[in-house]
Amino acid sequence: MDAQVYKKRIAILTSHIQESGLDVLLLTKPSNMFYLTGDGRLCAYALITQDGQVALGVPVTDIVDVESLATYDLLVGFDDEVGMIHSIAHYFQHFGISAGSVGLEYTFLTQSMMTMLTHPHAKPEKVVPRDCTHLLSEMRMVKELEEIALIHEAAKVADMGMMAAIQSVHEDATESLVASAAELGMRQAGAEGFWRTLVSSGPRTNIAHGIPTNRRLRVGDLVMIDIHPILQGYCADICRTVCVGKSTGEQQTAYELYLRAQQSTIGKLEAGVSMTDLDSHMHGILKDGGHGDHIFGPTIHGVGIDFEEAPLSPGHAFFHGEKAPPPLPANVVIAVGNCGLCTGPWGVRVEDTNWIKPDGYETLTTYPRFLRA
Amino acid sequence: MDAQVYKKRIAILTSHIQESGLDVLLLTKPSNMFYLTGDGRLCAYALITQDGQVALGVPVTDIVDVESLATYDLLVGFDDEVGMIHSIAHYFQHFGISAGSVGLEYTFLTQSMMTMLTHPHAKPEKVVPRDCTHLLSEMRMVKELEEIALIHEAAKVADMGMMAAIQSVHEDATESLVASAAELGMRQAGAEGFWRTLVSSGPRTNIAHGIPTNRRLRVGDLVMIDIHPILQGYCADICRTVCVGKSTGEQQTAYELYLRAQQSTIGKLEAGVSMTDLDSHMHGILKDGGHGDHIFGPTIHGVGIDFEEAPLSPGHAFFHGEKAPPPLPANVVIAVGNCGLCTGPWGVRVEDTNWIKPDGYETLTTYPRFLRA
Repeated sequence: MDAQVYKKRIAILTSHIQESGLDVLLLTKPSNMFYLTGDGRLCAYALITQDGQVALGVPVTDIVDVESLATYDLLVGFDDEVGMIHSIAHYFQHFGISAGSVGLEYTFLTQSMMTMLTHPHAKPEKVVPRDCTHLLSEMRMVKELEEIALIHEAAKVADMGMMAAIQSVHEDATESLVASAAELGMRQAGAEGFWRTLVSSGPRTNIAHGIPTNRRLRVGDLVMIDIHPILQGYCADICRTVCVGKSTGEQQTAYELYLRAQQSTIGKLEAGVSMTDLDSHMHGILKDGGHGDHIFGPTIHGVGIDFEEAPLSPGHAFFHGEKAPPPLPANVVIAVGNCGLCTGPWGVRVEDTNWIKPDGYETLTTYPRFLRA
Repeated sequence: MDAQVYKKRIAILTSHIQESGLDVLLLTKPSNMFYLTGDGRLCAYALITQDGQVALGVPVTDIVDVESLATYDLLVGFDDEVGMIHSIAHYFQHFGISAGSVGLEYTFLTQSMMTMLTHPHAKPEKVVPRDCTHLLSEMRMVKELEEIALIHEAAKVADMGMMAAIQSVHEDATESLVASAAELGMRQAGAEGFWRTLVSSGPRTNIAHGIPTNRRLRVGDLVMIDIHPILQGYCADICRTVCVGKSTGEQQTAYELYLRAQQSTIGKLEAGVSMTDLDSHMHGILKDGGHGDHIFGPTIHGVGIDFEEAPLSPGHAFFHGEKAPPPLPANVVIAVGNCGLCTGPWGVRVEDTNWIKPDGYETLTTYPRFLRA
């Protein structure tokens, strides 16, 4: 994106920093740095002052690469962890920040990383750490049209990956090889990468996170495929459940119920809707269909640079250290259908990425929804 | 593995818990739970008492799956985050632990997860949290022979993935498609999955973490491929650098220097060797070759359930919240060649997974080392 995009985002962030009473942010979460500067990477940080100065620290090897990708004011390279700490101290000194509060990403930082960033050789003693997770999450929750266009591109790639995966579903294929078909399909369609591919089959479709195994598919198995391609830094999220051969009546009925609940919930998307209402609506239909006790996980989550980001439903948000979401504004992108219907011997799930438009909504992932592979 | 394996590991851990003065551990890192029980998954926890009782909490949907995989004493399912917290409180009550200290994985827990696990509704007020990262890391650092056999299997899969990747290197292929060839190759060879595939090319071979992009390979580019298959829960780590077409004399010289430094360092592996000595040895050869200022990153790291685990070199260990390593005992598995040689316009790296045997060593990843693709 154009450098002006990042400058505008920094200007908005700056006003939030001031409102929150923070003096400076020290960010290390790659997706937040990517959003604010155009580059986010591991073992790097962005220090952002109250008046919008952006100072980056990266491995010394990465300087030229970062110069070509990021928009920033200051850039320094470091040789190792000690150098990283000292470079942070140097920036604090450079900006004359010796007291006040520094915003850190409590949702991202482990205790160990926290200890390092607040090390006496990094952070001035009188600068107190505070959580700034919500500042970035709230900004990133409402997408610019350019971001939505990128998520739309990722959604097309997700559709292609799903097609490749479903085409590979047959007796004796392993979950891992179905995952492979999806991953190859996504990369061939233009993905630079993907978040972890989930493929589960048979009784494993009942579990919360179906990380693929070498289990071989059998006739009559349900197969759940959940993929998340990354394209130009943005993601989409799609899940489909299909059957190897002919499904039972019970499977078909549960699938149709889930699909009806998901589609009906998507139908309620509009600016101003509350996450809790959407959640209750989807749960209500599943409950009326006799599966009230078979729901696990939040119904909905945001999609953007991370495949699971704000807005998160209240319980999920708490777990992820995020604030509970407000009524959803226009230009939020959310995946609907994240909660599985887990009957015990098997489960079904259908998930799509949707854009809440100023008027109505658009479902960005469009791969056909059917149980029979 | 047999249930006895897990019982033996718990017995050893129990003595460490007692020595450290902790009363109970509350673990959430999947690799640690996998090591101790045979199952590790997200959104789950293992509470382990000083007398070796293992109490698990998992999503209610996952009960049957966990029953079939894990060795434990107590198992409870929860519906959501609130249920998770309450189930932890219930276990504390069940074991009569109302004061003392609970070991948590500070290396793994974000501030937000920490807040949740130490929530007043989860942890008794008089139970104080303390870091227990090192207890598990030190145990996992020294592998049982069954574990080494699994890493050896993963190493064979890594070789197959590397072969597929290198075969796909040609002008106009993208980094992402080379990654895809590696990933498909690993899954076809039996991998259940893999840690993030790194493929960088041209000037990007200079950077620390070469996450693939859609950059197209050009004749004369170096291409760096770093892959980490997962097989039965264990990993291997291999990196190769190859050239698209004919390399320059300068590239060839740097490659040969790096390979000589890596192979010579591998040649020094034996029980009792120190990480610092290995590191100095490898750096010394690169420095004597005129590239002392072109080294980035730790030379060596452990490989096991995680592709990067203890032993870590001292600075790296600090960053990861681990203790600095002791002289390496027999049956440690380490990757040598993790530091890149970053010249500026391009970099080279060759990395292999090695087993330090009671007598000598064995390099487990064996794919040929050459620059010309």
